[in-house]
Amino acid sequence: MNFSSKLIEEAVNAFATLPGIGRKTALRLVLHLVKQPKENTEGVANALLRMRLGIKTCGICHNISDAEVCSVCLDTRRDRSTVMVVEGIRDVMAIEETGQFRGLYHILGGVISPIEGIGPQNLNIDSLMDRVAQGEIKEIIMAVSPTIEGDTTIYYVSKKLSLHEVKVSTLARGISFGGELEYADEVTLGRSIVQRVPYRMLNDD
Amino acid sequence: MNFSSKLIEEAVNAFATLPGIGRKTALRLVLHLVKQPKENTEGVANALLRMRLGIKTCGICHNISDAEVCSVCLDTRRDRSTVMVVEGIRDVMAIEETGQFRGLYHILGGVISPIEGIGPQNLNIDSLMDRVAQGEIKEIIMAVSPTIEGDTTIYYVSKKLSLHEVKVSTLARGISFGGELEYADEVTLGRSIVQRVPYRMLNDD
Repeated sequence: MNFSSKLIEEAVNAFATLPGIGRKTALRLVLHLVKQPKENTEGVANALLRMRLGIKTCGICHNISDAEVCSVCLDTRRDRSTVMVVEGIRDVMAIEETGQFRGLYHILGGVISPIEGIGPQNLNIDSLMDRVAQGEIKEIIMAVSPTIEGDTTIYYVSKKLSLHEVKVSTLARGISFGGELEYADEVTLGRSIVQRVPYRMLNDD
Repeated sequence: MNFSSKLIEEAVNAFATLPGIGRKTALRLVLHLVKQPKENTEGVANALLRMRLGIKTCGICHNISDAEVCSVCLDTRRDRSTVMVVEGIRDVMAIEETGQFRGLYHILGGVISPIEGIGPQNLNIDSLMDRVAQGEIKEIIMAVSPTIEGDTTIYYVSKKLSLHEVKVSTLARGISFGGELEYADEVTLGRSIVQRVPYRMLNDD
């Protein structure tokens, strides 16, 4: 692209470093900012700076947090005996969105993946063991991706947890709500038959 | 969306003010920045601020510019007797990309559109007349959108220009390179037959 302005070019290059934003999209964003009042650009830039310079990792669950301990871990109304183990921050958001979980979280930071060179030592497993060792936790819910790597991680963590008196559970696997039966893959469909459950009304509380 | 962090939420909201960026995309961008070193976010924020606070409008052609006069207008190697009249900044970039034009530009800032309430007084037409009145310009190339509004604008500007001794031309209209004849619309195809030109080799200089 041929920019008559060095300033525009630098702003386009900056936007284009973000994932999924090419130089054409970046140019569209920059020209949008040019047309808006200066305050809008200052608002965007300052929000990004405040966020990046202020953001911390929760010392307990490794979630991103505005303070040393995140708002979930600080919330005294939550059930401190149940901990949901997830891969990342976005999983916490997705689970919070359901409104079905009132316990605490523990963010692993990924799953064990020998292909990508991620071993147990690269994940927040030791700190999970430390939390369990304190004795308050009664149940660990392994909510990681239903993949080979996820299953490996569940196996590894549950084996380490067997030293402690703690119940380990996983999310139910089966056919998705709203999905069409004929399009479900055979592993999922097969398992959902083997692990069929007695019918009951959805408990909404 | 359920954010455990106020800082993340504000950064997501900031990104989401940009066109074509929804809250899900904004969240992806923010979480990307969180994973990167602080310097990356500072780089993006500072490039945006420098751009927005530093950018000017060229006093001659109304193009965006780093200085009071843009680099195109300052370039003494360019042909100052030919001025291409375009709607916006992006048109300048597109034309510069072709490498086929070595004259100057004049950015109208849009086209006459009664439906959108844009009249001649909202466009940079007076300043174009002022430039022409100085006598150096021999040809005005009207390079606006081939639409009703574009044609209206060409008509209006060329009428005003008829007071001066200046040649007015428009971009050639016809079938696009690489397009398939059967998919060309009938107006374009019809005109391209009526305005057929003698065959000649493309002059590449």
